Amino acid sequence: MKESVPSPPPGSAGIVETRHLDLPGTVRLDSGRELSGVRVAYETYGRLAAGRDNVILVCHALSGDAHAAGVARTPAAEPARDGFGAAGRPRGLGWWDGMIGPGKAFDTDRYFVVSTNFLGGCGGTTGPSSPDPATGRPYGPDFPVITVADMVGVQRAFLDALGVERLAAVAGGSLGGMQALEWAVRHPGRVDAVIAIASTHALHPQGVAWNAIAREAIMRDPDWQDGRYHGTGRAPDAGMGVARMVGHVTYLSAPALEEKFGRRLQSSDAIRHTLTEPEFEVESYLNHQAAAFVRRFDANTYLYTSRALTYFDLARQHGEGSLERALSGVSARTLLISFSSDWLYPPSASREIEEALRALGKPVEAHVIDAPYGHDCFLLEEARQTPLIRRFLG
Amino acid sequence: MKESVPSPPPGSAGIVETRHLDLPGTVRLDSGRELSGVRVAYETYGRLAAGRDNVILVCHALSGDAHAAGVARTPAAEPARDGFGAAGRPRGLGWWDGMIGPGKAFDTDRYFVVSTNFLGGCGGTTGPSSPDPATGRPYGPDFPVITVADMVGVQRAFLDALGVERLAAVAGGSLGGMQALEWAVRHPGRVDAVIAIASTHALHPQGVAWNAIAREAIMRDPDWQDGRYHGTGRAPDAGMGVARMVGHVTYLSAPALEEKFGRRLQSSDAIRHTLTEPEFEVESYLNHQAAAFVRRFDANTYLYTSRALTYFDLARQHGEGSLERALSGVSARTLLISFSSDWLYPPSASREIEEALRALGKPVEAHVIDAPYGHDCFLLEEARQTPLIRRFLG
Repeated sequence: MKESVPSPPPGSAGIVETRHLDLPGTVRLDSGRELSGVRVAYETYGRLAAGRDNVILVCHALSGDAHAAGVARTPAAEPARDGFGAAGRPRGLGWWDGMIGPGKAFDTDRYFVVSTNFLGGCGGTTGPSSPDPATGRPYGPDFPVITVADMVGVQRAFLDALGVERLAAVAGGSLGGMQALEWAVRHPGRVDAVIAIASTHALHPQGVAWNAIAREAIMRDPDWQDGRYHGTGRAPDAGMGVARMVGHVTYLSAPALEEKFGRRLQSSDAIRHTLTEPEFEVESYLNHQAAAFVRRFDANTYLYTSRALTYFDLARQHGEGSLERALSGVSARTLLISFSSDWLYPPSASREIEEALRALGKPVEAHVIDAPYGHDCFLLEEARQTPLIRRFLG
Repeated sequence: MKESVPSPPPGSAGIVETRHLDLPGTVRLDSGRELSGVRVAYETYGRLAAGRDNVILVCHALSGDAHAAGVARTPAAEPARDGFGAAGRPRGLGWWDGMIGPGKAFDTDRYFVVSTNFLGGCGGTTGPSSPDPATGRPYGPDFPVITVADMVGVQRAFLDALGVERLAAVAGGSLGGMQALEWAVRHPGRVDAVIAIASTHALHPQGVAWNAIAREAIMRDPDWQDGRYHGTGRAPDAGMGVARMVGHVTYLSAPALEEKFGRRLQSSDAIRHTLTEPEFEVESYLNHQAAAFVRRFDANTYLYTSRALTYFDLARQHGEGSLERALSGVSARTLLISFSSDWLYPPSASREIEEALRALGKPVEAHVIDAPYGHDCFLLEEARQTPLIRRFLG
């Protein structure tokens, strides 16, 4: 029988496969703990130039993975891209395929684009669902609490192993943008340009609250079992579903929900006086999102990653409370893109970074794209980000 | 031993006690079902005039109860008023005490103010935690699904039993405002004035989503036991806690959380790399709110009430999709108050009601109070609502 390989759409980075690399030695973490035997899942698109000077590292957000572009040779059962705009996407397409490929924002005719699953992830990189070398069983809650800086540390070690010394750019949206900013602060000598999209230097307290609620929903689920659910036949699917619903609503804007669903009922023109069944279309939609997410994502990874992104605070971690001081060593050019309707990572957060960099006399360019879909715009508004990124990189 | 009765603060409606009245006959519900033996918990403040023409009905919101004003003779262990502004409130004070009393917005020197716990509540009025006459056990999920119109129907039957034919005004905030609007539409001949504060004619889809998430959090808790948790020694406290956290964040604004908590850590100046412990002050605050709410509130009441308020839709229920048509029979004067930072029941919702009433040539007055505390302003900004309400009623 012939193997059925999906054909890549025109302009695609092609048929790709996630590969894995085992880091030599140990990785020392912010918490003081060490991890050995760290494996990194990654994909690359385009060709590494002889001078190794055309590398762009793309960093993913909370629920992403290494499969950023092209069509997976072996598509996952559930795509990492869900929510608005997910319906009708070809099966196996990377989560940022609209941005990465020949002639696209991150132009693979020119750049060698590298995408890794971050430390703590559940997409092939070492994380809480990976086997603990000490026991052979999944780490679970014995996995060390990690930070965005730890994710960046593993990316750096990975690039070292690949023989890549400098990055032409590091780019990402949301938590991916945090990693990009951390790169600029932590390794100024290795980054030429930073592209932080729909991101922040420190999540505002309401965002901290939403993340705390999502984590509580998981940890209060008895099937979480203090994080030791692997191998028990039970997982905190109920709590994960609630966590995803909370996340999903914070990623969208109220007007976007109004436009897409309004107050339309699911099954009829009149209310059915039901307590337990979804009645409004938006209720069914959230249930569907929750069910799909639970099938593809590890609950502990959600917890660790959510904690890392709420901890992220450039001023606290690098500037003794001053964002300007934290950014004082940055040498990369910076591009900041935010979206008018994003209330989770609002334009004001990007503006604070912009102002601090400007006050330091550093090259920075900032754009607010007027678009209605909230935080998810960084995935949905690929076409409008493309010229900004191409011009910035060009 | 002398009985220890708290002394009422100056300007208070005095020491009060929640009383109960059993409605005669049966109550027919929107769903077609009937309830018999309905008990109503209520309080009154001020004196009923001989002409019975000075009655103001005050309607409470999702988590409220009949104890709106004065000091309870027997204070509940957990006050119905929590969140911002709750600390330092005298024990046993009603949830809207700043609004109801001698010389206050609802002036008990002049008006006879009546406050009932609504149908489906857990504050003494018949609800899902009340005994089902058919079995003697709590209704639980056998309680009929109710609507805001059903709450109003019970209030009307209650006032009939009291011998009150007309209301000088009906007033409430949030879900309480929905009841007030329903009164104006359903019983135009019995209401002289409507005061709907931080309310809406139909919750927007994002609000529907938040409510669905809160209900999911409760119903996915295995201790909910399909609603039959009474008498089992287990209750869905974990899910209720998550539901309350979601609610609480939607009742506040992002700037209010920024101002009150910022990104301050709970226990130290540096992060502790903990997954399970609250780390930020806002996380501890939410945990505390959740724990207090679980102690005082019935989970099924939360479910039924949340469903009722998402169902509420004046245009759908009374106007074949047209708000103007729904309001065409209103004869009461209407006062609408909203708050600039309220994103759950935003000023735009009040504006839509205002515009529909104006288009119909009906007397309406609308104010947007510029205040930072989000939806909870209807509880917190008593001082600024007072002159508006006094002038409107005067």
